[in-house]
Amino acid sequence: MLRATIHKFLGVALFLLATTSISTHAQTAAKSLAEKLGYARDAKLMIVHADDLGMTHSVNAASIKGLESGLVTSASIMVPCPWFPEMVDYAKTHTDADLGLHLTLTSERVFYRWGPVAPRDKVPSLVDSNGYFHLNWTETTHIDAREVELELRAQIERALAMGVRPTHLDSHQYRLFENGKDIFQSVQRLAHEYKLPVFMVRDWFAARPYLESSLSPDDLVVDHTVTIGSGVAPEKWADFYSTALKNLQPGVTVFIIHLAFDDDEMRAATRERDTWGAAWRQRDFNFFTSTEFRALVREQDIKLVTWRELAHAAK
Amino acid sequence: MLRATIHKFLGVALFLLATTSISTHAQTAAKSLAEKLGYARDAKLMIVHADDLGMTHSVNAASIKGLESGLVTSASIMVPCPWFPEMVDYAKTHTDADLGLHLTLTSERVFYRWGPVAPRDKVPSLVDSNGYFHLNWTETTHIDAREVELELRAQIERALAMGVRPTHLDSHQYRLFENGKDIFQSVQRLAHEYKLPVFMVRDWFAARPYLESSLSPDDLVVDHTVTIGSGVAPEKWADFYSTALKNLQPGVTVFIIHLAFDDDEMRAATRERDTWGAAWRQRDFNFFTSTEFRALVREQDIKLVTWRELAHAAK
Repeated sequence: MLRATIHKFLGVALFLLATTSISTHAQTAAKSLAEKLGYARDAKLMIVHADDLGMTHSVNAASIKGLESGLVTSASIMVPCPWFPEMVDYAKTHTDADLGLHLTLTSERVFYRWGPVAPRDKVPSLVDSNGYFHLNWTETTHIDAREVELELRAQIERALAMGVRPTHLDSHQYRLFENGKDIFQSVQRLAHEYKLPVFMVRDWFAARPYLESSLSPDDLVVDHTVTIGSGVAPEKWADFYSTALKNLQPGVTVFIIHLAFDDDEMRAATRERDTWGAAWRQRDFNFFTSTEFRALVREQDIKLVTWRELAHAAK
Repeated sequence: MLRATIHKFLGVALFLLATTSISTHAQTAAKSLAEKLGYARDAKLMIVHADDLGMTHSVNAASIKGLESGLVTSASIMVPCPWFPEMVDYAKTHTDADLGLHLTLTSERVFYRWGPVAPRDKVPSLVDSNGYFHLNWTETTHIDAREVELELRAQIERALAMGVRPTHLDSHQYRLFENGKDIFQSVQRLAHEYKLPVFMVRDWFAARPYLESSLSPDDLVVDHTVTIGSGVAPEKWADFYSTALKNLQPGVTVFIIHLAFDDDEMRAATRERDTWGAAWRQRDFNFFTSTEFRALVREQDIKLVTWRELAHAAK
């Protein structure tokens, strides 16, 4: 199975964003997504997408603030996590919020953990000896794609049963996209069955040909994605995002961000390492709710959009 | 099945504490527990026991502070809860800490939830339609005692596998004590198998005869328990505990307390009702780490003890 670290995977995505021009559009033959949404063909559309909702209360509270600022346009929720019910309550009382499901198969923190929604004896390849999702997937972790589909279906069904009406699907830690055709096709089957778009980026196709070959002609594909990595120094956070915004290309770009407050809960939940930790997420919150970000969106003539709008336009 | 609300159950316990004199001791024929520990027969022994560790980070952090003050002598951990691994880490690095397992079959909060350790299709009577433990057990909740034993065994086994060496067992929300003989006998079988004392109070026998009839002669029984209830006004918190301490009877009394900080995480986790909420737990923390409490213990000549000491003495 083709594997890569997330860092490497993101590196490729960022490299492609920085160096390639837009050569193809799925909508070349017909109207582009931008045109279907009433914008010019070369408009710069952006989804600002907060990941990991449901993980902790801190993530929920910061992400809700981000969504309510109007600058964060979309987010996705982790169904297996203990704070999922808090986001269910929000979703049910804020039906306009653009909330998808952040399909989750790992429990990557040390002191705060979660496990599958499906009965764990039905998904043995997904859990460690204590019954939690694996901390990580390594070369020796054998993941059974049939169990992946069973667990993802259980996550979607719990969300629907509890009253969430998701606008899209994506993948925690990109696990479902970077671990081979069988796993990705499980996601695709569910996406078609539940009629939901999956976060999929044209820039990823070169490094992962099975992604493109698994798609159906009607599947929605965005052009680019941007996410910050551990190579960026904390004091360069705003510089990284400003540069990315000033170099935004025509088409649809999804910024994947991670919001939380740098508070006791979040520091404890992530204390074993700094990457995607409490301070990291506070920096993301600070930038994406800032007047600087709001001004850049206006100056660069960037159109903020949602997954709901894209899916509606793509129909 | 004989049932009662927790409030009623605690009311009976507090009434008995306030009005009865000590008429019996399990150790009447031989040395009392106090004597076995080297104290006078009429010594006042007290375990100050923090419940609900593992529930949230806030509970963990406040309870650890309480334990490290020396004034909170014991605590118990909820294995199914997401912050259990944080307490595992503490238990493994603080092997002198007197930590038991707070056996848990309910997930009583609305916005923050957990489920069984056993595969949930093996314990269908314990879970709601979304796979979480029931919010509450009502007259129409049929709980299968065989599933109780399966789930409790899974909780004990996970704790042992992760490196916790529990000193005792007790029951979240008293569910295992107040819901009939079959469920209590499940706990007793596990306690004997794993050679662990169970929190059991002589004052409870009058209202729940099946408790006494299910015990073996060697089972450890404490004399009294004190826990605060929702009838106490916040400003009367210290008064309630001071009065209880000044009226402490000879024998072993277990104070059941609930520690956490009144912070964002705890407020969000308990926001649907005030009982056992964030402010409640902060009040408990404030009292049981106060100089007032320390002075009362000294003035009243109260001996602070642990479950480990009691179990060792009872052998």
